[in-house]
Amino acid sequence: MSTKPPSGTRDFLPDDIRRREHVIGVVRDVYERYGFEPLETPAFENIETLLGKYGEEGNKLIFKILKRGEHEASGEADLALRYDLTVPLARVVAQYQSELPRFFKRYQIQPVWRADRPARGRFREFYQCDLDTIGTTSPLVEAEQMTAVAEILTRLGFADFVIRINHRAILTLLLAKATLPAAQHGDALVALDKIDKIGRDGVAKEMADRGISDAGSSALLNWIGSGARPDWLDWLERELDAAEHPAFLNLRQILDVARNTAAGERLRFDPSLARGLSYYTGAIMEIAVPDLAGSLGGGGRYDNLVGMFLGRDLPACGFSLGLERLIVVMMERGMFPASVVRGGLDVMVTIWNHDTRDASLALATDLRKAGLRVELYPEADKIGKQFKYASARHVPFVAILGDDERARGEVAIKNLHSGEQTAVSRADAAAFVKSRLDG
Amino acid sequence: MSTKPPSGTRDFLPDDIRRREHVIGVVRDVYERYGFEPLETPAFENIETLLGKYGEEGNKLIFKILKRGEHEASGEADLALRYDLTVPLARVVAQYQSELPRFFKRYQIQPVWRADRPARGRFREFYQCDLDTIGTTSPLVEAEQMTAVAEILTRLGFADFVIRINHRAILTLLLAKATLPAAQHGDALVALDKIDKIGRDGVAKEMADRGISDAGSSALLNWIGSGARPDWLDWLERELDAAEHPAFLNLRQILDVARNTAAGERLRFDPSLARGLSYYTGAIMEIAVPDLAGSLGGGGRYDNLVGMFLGRDLPACGFSLGLERLIVVMMERGMFPASVVRGGLDVMVTIWNHDTRDASLALATDLRKAGLRVELYPEADKIGKQFKYASARHVPFVAILGDDERARGEVAIKNLHSGEQTAVSRADAAAFVKSRLDG
Repeated sequence: MSTKPPSGTRDFLPDDIRRREHVIGVVRDVYERYGFEPLETPAFENIETLLGKYGEEGNKLIFKILKRGEHEASGEADLALRYDLTVPLARVVAQYQSELPRFFKRYQIQPVWRADRPARGRFREFYQCDLDTIGTTSPLVEAEQMTAVAEILTRLGFADFVIRINHRAILTLLLAKATLPAAQHGDALVALDKIDKIGRDGVAKEMADRGISDAGSSALLNWIGSGARPDWLDWLERELDAAEHPAFLNLRQILDVARNTAAGERLRFDPSLARGLSYYTGAIMEIAVPDLAGSLGGGGRYDNLVGMFLGRDLPACGFSLGLERLIVVMMERGMFPASVVRGGLDVMVTIWNHDTRDASLALATDLRKAGLRVELYPEADKIGKQFKYASARHVPFVAILGDDERARGEVAIKNLHSGEQTAVSRADAAAFVKSRLDG
Repeated sequence: MSTKPPSGTRDFLPDDIRRREHVIGVVRDVYERYGFEPLETPAFENIETLLGKYGEEGNKLIFKILKRGEHEASGEADLALRYDLTVPLARVVAQYQSELPRFFKRYQIQPVWRADRPARGRFREFYQCDLDTIGTTSPLVEAEQMTAVAEILTRLGFADFVIRINHRAILTLLLAKATLPAAQHGDALVALDKIDKIGRDGVAKEMADRGISDAGSSALLNWIGSGARPDWLDWLERELDAAEHPAFLNLRQILDVARNTAAGERLRFDPSLARGLSYYTGAIMEIAVPDLAGSLGGGGRYDNLVGMFLGRDLPACGFSLGLERLIVVMMERGMFPASVVRGGLDVMVTIWNHDTRDASLALATDLRKAGLRVELYPEADKIGKQFKYASARHVPFVAILGDDERARGEVAIKNLHSGEQTAVSRADAAAFVKSRLDG
């Protein structure tokens, strides 16, 4: 029997968890200060809640659960594992609408599951950190979400990220002005979305392969594929003769509000940004860093999805940070503070011999009362063996209560890093360790 | 389409999450101070990892996942949702044995899933808070785990819990002395385990129904079913002539070590405690409170389970707290501090009119920088409507930046509880709100 975790999933050992908790702690703190409140939903949903929400490809990647655990014969599935955090949110908004505030701002940090082919950095179980605002079309929403995300990335130590921003209705306008028939819009967006990976010529070839006319393809690549330009939004607005177009107005409002925030200097208008999910209706955003092919997160406005559950449309906008990618980049760049992975213990109490066991237990109790993380060696083992164990666990301090120390009402505290050993009075042991840990 | 969560599961709205986080925060803090380190495992395991570990009934309650999400036709399942946290731990210990310390002390706080019939207080998705120590048979382990659990319950505000303790080998000795054939031991334990619910006569009847002899039944009920007695352990040891029996010695050691800890005065030897899971081999424990039929948690020593994965036995002992039951009892008794459910916001910033939007955003930014949880009203709405919204959200303070306030370089801060409104200088706004929140 294999003892590995299932394909595409991971076990998180203590150091992994500490890194994850570090990132989640920053995300949660910032989300809360921006007025978002926590929500959690079940790991699985009724299967009909998820089917048909993620496109044909997405449908295939949904993990389906056999009914009542007993229908092995019929193979009937009635539940499915959460595929993202947005569809469950839409269901929650419909279910609890009378209890929720008019503007519902929630964050949700939970795993999702996709039956994808596992690959480097692609997992079947991974965490998303979502924040969404339901109930208003105000451009403050997009600005606030981007600001929160920019603050998180800055606090985590990212100095080189940009927030790419575009608008779904600008894309639609571009496709119409390029005289593409509506049936080809999806194909064209899929091709354009790859421009960072396959370049301008690659996109031209893919559009030709998909039957898009040369004229249409050239027009699109003229507007989109010519590389970043500082005045891209102004230039495109003139090219398209679209100064009064609501999408340009909306985007300018968002940029205007965001200008004086932490997101301001990070923002880049980029009309090649398409974002896969079909439910977006307004502004769309994505976080890019130079050394990652994909994005660290993204989001956008989706004013119709909640309506699929509620029966009437409710405006909504959200942003999702990918925890696994944040951690991958932070690991590769060595961005985790030493304190995060320094280990989970402050001090280990040894047991000198069987008769001193109770005294050691009492000392461990006192150290724990003082808030220290304390390992009590479980057996009256050879003292050398106990020290060896403490070193292997990376415990910074070891407390020794031998017969001599006890006779003098003292404890010997050994700093395993420096090797220095200090005798302190029993009553001062906790304060001594705490002061040395802080120093 | 129903918008309810699936049968037996729950959505957790912000107040629910805050209660859960309060309990989890205490559990985690205590577990860490006792030297336990965090571990997380995937939501699903390969199906063969779980099958056959929980008895026949347990097998039926395992949620099974269709292979690669595509095998609807064959109904073939290759994954299954985590049923408890102990079997995944045993797999992890086998998989990473070379990386783990000799004594591996881990805690794990994650949901598990069981395809049980939902009922009041019985869910299909629920959290367990486990701590386990692998690698030693020292009685310090049981004592330390019970002490940690006692400290958690005390900090959460439980004053009336007891820790029932028994030993699997004492039960086996009792059954043998009552001359029950080994084939009837399981049946007898199932019946005895119900003595709190169905009483002495009920147990006698059930044992008769299960074909257990009157002599055997009487002997067992004489030893076990006669109600708590202060000297139960001594009395039973004499009755069974078992002073040198290893189970009695082991239990006395555990009680001796625990005597001077937070668990000491809570401990009650209770030979009727059987605990359902068949993998226990030594001491078994369970937390009882008067107003709950089931237990708040329980655990015990299981020295053979890890061996099923590792190929050689490794001693192990664990304790599991049931998060849902803790919360149910705490809700019913009103044990949550007001601060836990007071809401997620400290202050709301209003928007006076469209021209003051940027000034309000800047104020919100400053308040957030000071660590406050700040809602920025998203639209330049009627001010009365903004106040009504703030009241509905239970925000304690509202900040108003009208034209007059801006001209004077001030902010008006209204305490929504008292109705009092104070003009403070713009620079002092954050400090003012913080001082009033703490007071």
